[in-house]
Amino acid sequence: MRENSYEVDADILMNPRVWEASGHLSGFTDPLLDCKECKTRHRADNLIQDYDASVNADAMTQEEMVSFIREKQIPCPVCGKSNFTDIRQFNLMFETKRGVTDDSTSRIFLRPENAQGEYVNYLNVMRSMRAKLPFSIGQIGKAFRNEITPKNFTFRTIEFEQMEFQTFCKEGDDSELYQYYKEYGKKFFESLGLPAEKLRFHDHEKLAHYAKEACDIEYQFPFGWGEINGTHNRTNFDLSRHQEYSGKSMEYFDEATKEKYIPYIIESTYGLDRIVLALLFEGLHEEKISDTDTRIVFNIKPSLAPVKVNVLPLMKKKHADKAREIYQRLSKYFMVQYEESGSIGKRYRRGDAIGIPYAITVDDATLEQETVTVRDRDTMEQEIMSVEGLVEFLRRNLE
Amino acid sequence: MRENSYEVDADILMNPRVWEASGHLSGFTDPLLDCKECKTRHRADNLIQDYDASVNADAMTQEEMVSFIREKQIPCPVCGKSNFTDIRQFNLMFETKRGVTDDSTSRIFLRPENAQGEYVNYLNVMRSMRAKLPFSIGQIGKAFRNEITPKNFTFRTIEFEQMEFQTFCKEGDDSELYQYYKEYGKKFFESLGLPAEKLRFHDHEKLAHYAKEACDIEYQFPFGWGEINGTHNRTNFDLSRHQEYSGKSMEYFDEATKEKYIPYIIESTYGLDRIVLALLFEGLHEEKISDTDTRIVFNIKPSLAPVKVNVLPLMKKKHADKAREIYQRLSKYFMVQYEESGSIGKRYRRGDAIGIPYAITVDDATLEQETVTVRDRDTMEQEIMSVEGLVEFLRRNLE
Repeated sequence: MRENSYEVDADILMNPRVWEASGHLSGFTDPLLDCKECKTRHRADNLIQDYDASVNADAMTQEEMVSFIREKQIPCPVCGKSNFTDIRQFNLMFETKRGVTDDSTSRIFLRPENAQGEYVNYLNVMRSMRAKLPFSIGQIGKAFRNEITPKNFTFRTIEFEQMEFQTFCKEGDDSELYQYYKEYGKKFFESLGLPAEKLRFHDHEKLAHYAKEACDIEYQFPFGWGEINGTHNRTNFDLSRHQEYSGKSMEYFDEATKEKYIPYIIESTYGLDRIVLALLFEGLHEEKISDTDTRIVFNIKPSLAPVKVNVLPLMKKKHADKAREIYQRLSKYFMVQYEESGSIGKRYRRGDAIGIPYAITVDDATLEQETVTVRDRDTMEQEIMSVEGLVEFLRRNLE
Repeated sequence: MRENSYEVDADILMNPRVWEASGHLSGFTDPLLDCKECKTRHRADNLIQDYDASVNADAMTQEEMVSFIREKQIPCPVCGKSNFTDIRQFNLMFETKRGVTDDSTSRIFLRPENAQGEYVNYLNVMRSMRAKLPFSIGQIGKAFRNEITPKNFTFRTIEFEQMEFQTFCKEGDDSELYQYYKEYGKKFFESLGLPAEKLRFHDHEKLAHYAKEACDIEYQFPFGWGEINGTHNRTNFDLSRHQEYSGKSMEYFDEATKEKYIPYIIESTYGLDRIVLALLFEGLHEEKISDTDTRIVFNIKPSLAPVKVNVLPLMKKKHADKAREIYQRLSKYFMVQYEESGSIGKRYRRGDAIGIPYAITVDDATLEQETVTVRDRDTMEQEIMSVEGLVEFLRRNLE
């Protein structure tokens, strides 16, 4: 909906030179060490962080991490002894081979982040869409990292989904846009239903080589604060590197000032799986509804609920035909579920547990006067409504 | 919209045992041979097919292919000599390694087809959605094949998008469903705007080991007939194999008959990139509109057009504010483009070339009486319409 915004679906298997230019081939590594006693492998930064959460391991050099681990005698989480090898750096990119030859020139990589897909397509998008700065390129897609320690449910996985928005701008306009997207991220999360008090900014003290400003937004998961968004002022680092490695000019010609320059990039990237995990933690809970009764309900925003409407005939024999007719009509507009077996109370509860915002019960009144009972997931209140007005009612409330 | 239909987004990197069970690890190969003269590598079946299109190389054994090539003295497409090695089978799956160890147990594969993702999730979907046979699982996603000869624009690429619909059913119901989905495919393509005379069924004579019935739908590309859909009656082969390799029962309990059995699967799979390529060939052309004038127009169905509406102020200075207001309003509902530079005629033509179905011109009448001119891409006819009625008009015509 945002003006001057375009979308790409870039390759997962890109030209391997892209990862040389971006710095991933040489620098996208994890500091790993082995326990000499039990032969298990660990990330040095995780060992330190788990030992003392107040230490910022990311800001340490490799030597500082080794010294810290030895000084504090940090134990191996598997065998409890403290006898580690030195740190070795392991690249997180999954590597494969293109074609049937087996030489090093055929090495290609699964993308470890989506962003470079937008950067190497910047000229394509700008020219074909006749875009002028500032403009943005968005992408939703999968990225892959050969993590040795996937953990915390779906928080860290080897295959994950990123949603991101890369804004190309003139140097000088960068800091304002950076600030805008940083704050926009927090508002966006609140609009999804994550409470403000469980969200915080984490401004980076130690900046990556490409960044002028960088900030994460963290959500308070039950297992601790975790990053769900990153906003970075990447300067003109990426496009300059792609210009250098491709030999292709990445310059923008500014018609207003007649200048030529390489645009700055403000990146705002969202971890889709982590956001879904946060929404599950936030919304899914057991609710006491009387002294003897509880229900499991997933209080997700109606606009985000996967299934929008539950169509339920009160009695299978008598009301199923009519209920199916309503189901068919609504399923042109919404994701609708139809369920006819079990008591109506049980069917309500099953819908609550997967977050269906509205349950529509079809009964004698539907046959006689074309009305249905609409039950609200959160309040459990019921309302009689005409079948004719359903689409409009649902559209309004699901937007 | 179809009842009893569910969607999954399965992993690209699945447990490698999946590909043992499916037969891909041992059998998903291309027959390759090298030219001894110029050292280039070729697919034996392609050499034969390109030499004589009436021969069905897919139905030949490896030995038959070698004999045919030698007998006919088929020349190397690069150097023109006919002196080839024997055929070697190369697996088409991209292989990578999970974790940081380097032994063979860490080998994993990029999925070469999506279907196995639905098959290994069949129990998950059935149980969580309380599905009863027959039901279907759909998926849209990327698959990867290490093709040695990508060619014909985007017809054959190493990374491609499949859309598919897998229907699980009882043995005995399979042939009727197979017939239904085969015919549905052709109707679906016609509904997208591909003409019936450029579509044909290609029933397989030689069936894959897993198939009882199989048929492709082919479209007549400028470079020849090419498969854009495949419908297969896969019997209970896949689920039986997954039961065998996982040790987990894949049986369905039929409440009506009290029987237990492994369901049959009817697969209908669509190559998204190939369909888009077909739509481009079909819709994009140069049209003579007068003795001296031509235009490039992309006659794609409005419901498929990427950009739906082109909002154009007649004069930038005078009408841009109003045009932007209309742009903002429409962009809540549709993908809208706004363009203010160049003559109105040029802007119409640019919109035609990328298939925008409607151009909305904002002029003095818009300022004075809230009406706009709506131009139809195909007929080039113009109609005056109230701004207020635009959303409704567009919704009706873009559905």
